[in-house]
Formats: sequence, C-alpha cells, structure tokens
Amino acid sequence: MLIVGTGLIGASIGCALTRQGAEVHLWDLDPANAMVAAGRGAGVLSLLDPGDYRLVIVATPPSAVASTIAERLRWHRNAVVTDTASVKSAVLSALRERDIDLSRYVGSHPMSGTQYTGPLTAVPELFVDRTWVLTPRPENSAESIERVRMLAGLCGARTVTLDTRDHDTAVAEVSHLPQLMSILTAANLRHAARSHLPLAGGGIRDVTRIAQSQTEMWRQILTANRTAVREQLGQVREDLDTLINVLDDPDELESFLKMGRAGARSLGGKHGRELSETTTVVVEIPDRPGALARLFSDIDRLGVNIEDLSVEHDQARDAGFLSIEVDPARADDLRAWMREHDWGLRS
Amino acid sequence: MLIVGTGLIGASIGCALTRQGAEVHLWDLDPANAMVAAGRGAGVLSLLDPGDYRLVIVATPPSAVASTIAERLRWHRNAVVTDTASVKSAVLSALRERDIDLSRYVGSHPMSGTQYTGPLTAVPELFVDRTWVLTPRPENSAESIERVRMLAGLCGARTVTLDTRDHDTAVAEVSHLPQLMSILTAANLRHAARSHLPLAGGGIRDVTRIAQSQTEMWRQILTANRTAVREQLGQVREDLDTLINVLDDPDELESFLKMGRAGARSLGGKHGRELSETTTVVVEIPDRPGALARLFSDIDRLGVNIEDLSVEHDQARDAGFLSIEVDPARADDLRAWMREHDWGLRS
Repeated sequence: MLIVGTGLIGASIGCALTRQGAEVHLWDLDPANAMVAAGRGAGVLSLLDPGDYRLVIVATPPSAVASTIAERLRWHRNAVVTDTASVKSAVLSALRERDIDLSRYVGSHPMSGTQYTGPLTAVPELFVDRTWVLTPRPENSAESIERVRMLAGLCGARTVTLDTRDHDTAVAEVSHLPQLMSILTAANLRHAARSHLPLAGGGIRDVTRIAQSQTEMWRQILTANRTAVREQLGQVREDLDTLINVLDDPDELESFLKMGRAGARSLGGKHGRELSETTTVVVEIPDRPGALARLFSDIDRLGVNIEDLSVEHDQARDAGFLSIEVDPARADDLRAWMREHDWGLRS
Repeated sequence: MLIVGTGLIGASIGCALTRQGAEVHLWDLDPANAMVAAGRGAGVLSLLDPGDYRLVIVATPPSAVASTIAERLRWHRNAVVTDTASVKSAVLSALRERDIDLSRYVGSHPMSGTQYTGPLTAVPELFVDRTWVLTPRPENSAESIERVRMLAGLCGARTVTLDTRDHDTAVAEVSHLPQLMSILTAANLRHAARSHLPLAGGGIRDVTRIAQSQTEMWRQILTANRTAVREQLGQVREDLDTLINVLDDPDELESFLKMGRAGARSLGGKHGRELSETTTVVVEIPDRPGALARLFSDIDRLGVNIEDLSVEHDQARDAGFLSIEVDPARADDLRAWMREHDWGLRS
C-alpha cells in the first residue's frame, strides 16, 4: 500500500495500517512531512516499483486531490486508487474532464478531522468507531470496492455507502455548515470589548472550537462544495430571521429552542449511538442522611446502567421521587431488586 | 448562609461551601430538590430564624429571581442577599419597581452552567477557576460587596466586577449568542435525511452540545436579555449575508475564515488563559529511525513545555525542520540544551 500525502489523515491511516501489520509506503510533496510521518510510525519512506502497489491512498490537500488521483491511476497500473477528500462531486467532475478510465478509482471519505493538521498529531486510533464513507460508482468492480472497504475496516472505522452527490449534501449538513456557524460565532467576538472576554465559559468554547481549524484547508473544502453549502446557509438565514422575530414571544421562542434541542438529540450519543428508548422506574427518596448514596450503590450492585435521572415531587403525598431511566429489558429486574432492598416504588 | 433554590447552581454552591467548612442551609420550592441537594452534600434542610442569616443566595429559575430577592430582603433583616441570575438589568428593574431598599442586594453571576440541570449533577468543583461576575451598585456598602466576593472565593471562582448593563451585553456576546448559534445549527438538521446523520463527527457535536440544554430556562434567560441578544443576532445576520456573498471568492472567503479563527483564539486556552506569546526554536529533523521520539524525550528531560509544533521544509537545503514554540523565557535554555545533545538548530 502507498499513501500519497502524509498530513494528519494520511499519516494516521499509515499508523493504523502499520499497527495491523501491513507494509505501508509513504510519499509527500514535502519530504519533511513524510519523514515526520515515518517517525510517528506511519510506514517507511522507501518505494516499490509503481506496478507493485495494490492500493494507493491519496490524502493530499483538497485542491491537489483530482490531479494526484489521475497521475497515480496512470502510474500504478495494478492498483485501486482511493482518496480521502471531504467533497466528492468536485473531484469526480475534475477527473471526468480528463478522459481517463476511472474504473480503478473508488472515492472514500474518512470522517475524522480534528482542529489539528500535519503528521505530528497523527495517531492510529483516529478512525476507530468513526464513519468512513465509500462513494462507489457502477463502473467500479466489486473487488476494487472491497479493497477500499477493507482499508476502512483495518483502520477500525464503520463504513457507510452513499451516492457521490448525496455524500456532498450530507457533509454540507453535518460538517460544513457547523464549521461556518462556529466561524460566524467566533467572528462576532470582534465586536466585544476585551473586558468582556473573561466571561466566556465552556459553552462558547465548545461552539467555537472548530473555528480554530486551518483556514486554507477549509477554504478549499468550502469552495469545492459551495453549491450545497450555499443552500444550507440560505436555510439558516431563514431560521435566523424567524428567531429574531420570535424573541418577543416566549412561547414561539421556546418552540424554536425545542427544535434545536431535537436536532442536537438526533445526533445521538458521543459515538453516534442513537439515544435509546428507555423505561422509567420511579423510586421514593427517603428523608434519611446517606439515603441517596445507598440508593445508587444498590443500583450499581445490580449492574444496571442509568441512562438518565431526574427528581420529581409528588404534590399529593408531599414526597420526593427519583425517576430513573433504564434499558427496557432491565426495568423489571431493577424494580424487583429495589423492592427486595426495601426501596419504595411508585406504581 | 442560606441557599434558596437548589438546582444545579444552588446545590453546587452548597457543596463547595460545605466542603470549605461553612454551615449551609437549603430551601427549595420543591422539597424533593432540596432533599437531593442535601443528599449530594450541599448542606442541611433545617432552618435558622430568618434574622440569623448573614448571606442569602437566591439561585431560583430566572423568572422567579426578582420576587424571591424582594421577599428575602424583607424576611432576612441582617443578611446581604445575592443572586445567580445570568441577566442582571431585568432583575434590577423589576426590583426597583417595588420601591424597596436595595442597599443589601448585591447582584452576582457565577459563569458555569452545563447542559445539565437539577441538584443530581451538582459538584463542589463547578466554579473552580471559573469567572464569577459581581455587579455592585453605588448604594451597596463595601462590606456587603465583600461578603459576596468572599462567597465566590470560597467556591474557587475568579471574580470580575462589571456594571449591570455592561454585564448583560457581555453575556449576550459570549453566552447567549453562542447558545442561539448552537440552536440554529442543530435546528437545521431537521432538513437532513436520516441516512446522513451517521456522517456527523466531533465538530457538529461540539457546536450543538449546548443546544441540548433545558429550553425553559433558556427561554427565560433570552427573554430577559432580548434587547442585547437582538443586537447580536443582527450583527450575525449581516455577517451571514457577507459569507453567502464571498463563497465564490476564495480570497475573501479565506479572510472571513481567518476572522473567525482570530475570534476563537481571542478566547485563549481552556481555562481562559490567554494564548501566550512564544518563541520559536527550529531543530533539524535527522533522517534516522527513532530520531523524533528521541528528540521529544530530550525536550521532556529539560522540562520545557511545548506550546505548539509544526513541520517546515527548507527548499534550499532539501531538509526537514521542526518549529517548536516555547515560553520565551525558556527558549535560550532549550537552544543550549539541544546543541549540547547534538541536535542541529537553524540559526
């Protein structure tokens, strides 16, 4: 395998493959980058004869991807060539203009950037449990698609297959628009007095973290996907107008906030796990010191995972209750266990 | 001390004060909340005579703050009363309409919400190294201001003093606008196909994390500060129009992205530390296996902190270099140390 372009993504792929025992060769337009990548354990700098590679991974900056793929398809007659570009239609159009056989090119996109760049921050775990999109086309052989799927698998990623155009819409929605919203939020700080900045807390830091990303790379990505990105920005512009209009109407404002909450929750947990359905078990909180600690320790000993917790008050009985959300499959176990340990349940 | 309202903020203040050895009394409109707060170690449920409290902390939901402060000023004749509301002008106007003596009321605002609410998630460390804004007025005695400053200090927070109106502008800039940008980003996902959501990575999760916050509390905050918030949204609307217009112009687009990057960097490090000035030491990367690991271990042994790192390539000499950013006070030490250990420096 040959990796062409040993920035964060290329070098991390190299580290992951090397760890799996694969022989990985590295090349970069800037030899210092390849040297650092090799130093991080991404592979070796020596090269085979061009015809000896079976898989070539193009991980250059976005603007160089199409020309590099074309070049490598020509040089490596026996290789499947894939790339890691985050916009796929622009690459494909540029390749189609060149009138070359593209049956050995299978597009792919590992979804795992950070705000860092360059081989120094490369790690083999970068793709573990992340999504790696494949964008195969009818002209690709099943065997060539399989070779790229295997690559993603060796890196620990989950593969998703999407049509080229569909992929670009999806990244505009879940990656490029959020990037620009982060940029807009951060850019607005230029109006703020310096004395106001110490009030910044974790919230704005979360929202503006990705605004610190390398601007040149993002300029290339956004330019390549500008049609889909413009559509997303147009939608947000309409929502922004709506938001400005509902600021004086508490009910409509709260509906708007709920729409945002639902959107955020639709992304599921940290690793893309869906927020699962849960069943509620309601336990009475006794008015005794240490009762809560004992309650949690009892739940722990049963080994049931608490998905969510909230406090409720029963007006009629003037008592406090804990609503415990658990996996529906474990709810009956938990109820029996709690009764057995003398906790009061609300039926 | 008495804490009125034992949600996340009130209960966490109680936990912090209790840990410092203070005697803290808890009250909540919902007794179950106070019970849970006590169970988390925030204080005790028994109450003293109203005149025996020296400090009363009102930590109720925003819409109840003004009436609760008025009530507590009347009941606790010897107490300084403070609050934790995140919008201060609205509270002050509501209090001034009541024609009561406000000399014992000192406004304050601990800046440390999370997306969680309620006493179950209370922790004593919530305010450590966070900003706690005081908004004293000329009618407050120095002693009453000092009592609130001491409260913030016991919780481990850094105090900042701002004029009431200035505070509200600042929170619109660094907290309320980012909240709404997060909401807008998350709300836009309603247009996305379900099959596109698995492509969501860490970036959009960061941007939309706070959109999951409790909507009722945010509706109250935003309504209370709607004048300042509207101004911020108007600014962003102008920037959004600009952004849509520059999408086709790579240079202008990159300038826009840089404006965002500068804004994000103006917030400084994780705990509000300013991004410090650094000095660059440039070390040649030898083309030998294991060289990089040894280089970092040599730097480690000197005990110099690496603030930033990048790879450079010297075209003329066809060699690779590492640019190492360090504290200017340590740069000469590092240079001497590296020379001593046979590393090549670029002068």
